[in-house]
Amino acid sequence: MKPYISSKAELHGKVLEGAVILGPSKIGSESLVDNGAIVGYPSRQKLLSLLGRDKGVLRIDELDSISSGALIGEGCIVRSGCILYEDVKLGNRIELGHNVLIRSGSNVGEYSRIGSGTQLDGAVQVGRDVNIQSQVYLPHLTEVEERVFLGPCVRVTNDLYPLSRRLVKTVIERGAVIGCGAVILAGVVVGEDAVVAAGAVVTRDVQPRAVVAGIPAKQISTREEYEERKKAYEAGERPTSPR
Amino acid sequence: MKPYISSKAELHGKVLEGAVILGPSKIGSESLVDNGAIVGYPSRQKLLSLLGRDKGVLRIDELDSISSGALIGEGCIVRSGCILYEDVKLGNRIELGHNVLIRSGSNVGEYSRIGSGTQLDGAVQVGRDVNIQSQVYLPHLTEVEERVFLGPCVRVTNDLYPLSRRLVKTVIERGAVIGCGAVILAGVVVGEDAVVAAGAVVTRDVQPRAVVAGIPAKQISTREEYEERKKAYEAGERPTSPR
Amino acid sequence: MKPYISSKAELHGKVLEGAVILGPSKIGSESLVDNGAIVGYPSRQKLLSLLGRDKGVLRIDELDSISSGALIGEGCIVRSGCILYEDVKLGNRIELGHNVLIRSGSNVGEYSRIGSGTQLDGAVQVGRDVNIQSQVYLPHLTEVEERVFLGPCVRVTNDLYPLSRRLVKTVIERGAVIGCGAVILAGVVVGEDAVVAAGAVVTRDVQPRAVVAGIPAKQISTREEYEERKKAYEAGERPTSPR
Repeated sequence: MKPYISSKAELHGKVLEGAVILGPSKIGSESLVDNGAIVGYPSRQKLLSLLGRDKGVLRIDELDSISSGALIGEGCIVRSGCILYEDVKLGNRIELGHNVLIRSGSNVGEYSRIGSGTQLDGAVQVGRDVNIQSQVYLPHLTEVEERVFLGPCVRVTNDLYPLSRRLVKTVIERGAVIGCGAVILAGVVVGEDAVVAAGAVVTRDVQPRAVVAGIPAKQISTREEYEERKKAYEAGERPTSPR
Repeated sequence: MKPYISSKAELHGKVLEGAVILGPSKIGSESLVDNGAIVGYPSRQKLLSLLGRDKGVLRIDELDSISSGALIGEGCIVRSGCILYEDVKLGNRIELGHNVLIRSGSNVGEYSRIGSGTQLDGAVQVGRDVNIQSQVYLPHLTEVEERVFLGPCVRVTNDLYPLSRRLVKTVIERGAVIGCGAVILAGVVVGEDAVVAAGAVVTRDVQPRAVVAGIPAKQISTREEYEERKKAYEAGERPTSPR
Repeated sequence: MKPYISSKAELHGKVLEGAVILGPSKIGSESLVDNGAIVGYPSRQKLLSLLGRDKGVLRIDELDSISSGALIGEGCIVRSGCILYEDVKLGNRIELGHNVLIRSGSNVGEYSRIGSGTQLDGAVQVGRDVNIQSQVYLPHLTEVEERVFLGPCVRVTNDLYPLSRRLVKTVIERGAVIGCGAVILAGVVVGEDAVVAAGAVVTRDVQPRAVVAGIPAKQISTREEYEERKKAYEAGERPTSPR
């Protein structure tokens, strides 16, 4: 087993056997790209250009030749099975779990983490110090600001009336906390430091520092109360639900 | 890195290095099977037959020899990490994301798309022009008719009282739209052109052209109203929730 | 394509070409480790130790040298794309789907099954005869007792006020049934033989033999009634919802 490393790539870190680095990708120092990860995967249009009438084996060289590469900063970990499309940019000190999919145009800020099986399925902007857990789904146009927490299986949408001809941006502002399995509908702004309870379906904007829950989500509390309960919880009180 | 292409396979399209094509699979012209995809994976019973008392390395030849193959039409894209079991049939012009799992007995109609991480976990029938987003779960016996839209993370079930001895069919009729993260319980029929809101749990049949929402899902509107709002939304009105 | 089998590993079963077996892992007799599966993946701390200032290709030998291995019993199937971290222990006769992720410290009891794309994301204890469906998420500290059924996309959490400094254990007691897409909040105990309906969000302990549904989940029935309805359902009655 050998990695495939494009002759156009700049490698300052480490690449495990079995990794595939395409196009003019850059891997920063002290970074690791794991077995079976693909960096610089060509976007759909380019892939389609390879589908002519001839048949047979397509060499990775050919994918390489059409890839514009991805940028990975310093001190990053890209675990096995991750697929980073071309025109993806990871800042420094970012850690990805296994099988993370990040599509073209996405940027991830430094010190952020993204859990296994999560998808950034289009051009998604993620700030610094963001904690994204496993199996999260963020579509094209999503913006996640700094210090946000997205629990496991959080899902965001970008089309309010699918299949419409209009995709809209959904924004999770800085410091917000989104509980496990919550759904945030297209076009919603979740305000700064707001909290969305696990399993909520958020259909309207959430005010800064509000805590919302339910389907459709309604305000049940404030961030101040959340932080008080959190303190008691951290001090070892028997866990009780936020609601 | 070289692909594994069964000597029994018929290859009219292209196969990337690292792909595995087992048994008498057929890959149509202008189709692409990507790095790390497996086509014609043997069903459970056959796999078990390989587990004798001897030990050591099992060659892919041996998987190949027991596979009955899968059929992929013309102009299809099967991206990296996809696993198509034997006795799967994809029509023409179908596009799969990454890591899509399709088990034996499934058929997918032409022009349909299936997003990354989605599972057709048994014999699942998918019509033509169907749009299935990422991380969707469709169990054995599910039927999805033509022109259906399944949002990200939609889940269907096939056993109303698990673990029972009776699996039942769930049907999503033509033109229906199922919102992100909705759950459709076993045995339900979602009628033609019906709409299920994001996050809904559908426990009863949905009438054609009804819009349902909530847990358990109840009718809140009609497809006609949905289409009117959609028109306003497409025209650029500030997004508001369907409810 | 050749598998990588550590010289420290004990192989009593079969390993497919393309599998990676690291460290002093043991694979029991009549077990199969499939193409592209990784057994004995090093934990985060060890992986970080490999990230020095030098650059270039990291050989799988080096991952192998730091792995403490994983244990797989007899008659197990570990399908393609599965990642078993070091210090994972699978009992006998366990079957995993594709792309299952199991992190260090997890134990799985004999005869249990885990569906494709499911994650045991930390030290998770799973008893015997447990049936875990696809795309399930179980975080660090989760305990799942014997004979439990977890439907597709069930999610458990371990932090009631993320991001707090306190992770707590969530327990699903023996014989419980958790429906598709349900969310169980951190610290909850789901009692013996309890049933959680599909799509429920469980915020408080569930009494043994209670059936709960909704957001937040409330008791709607008993296991006795559930079993009666199940019997009628198995006898072929038109499926009706549990509620």
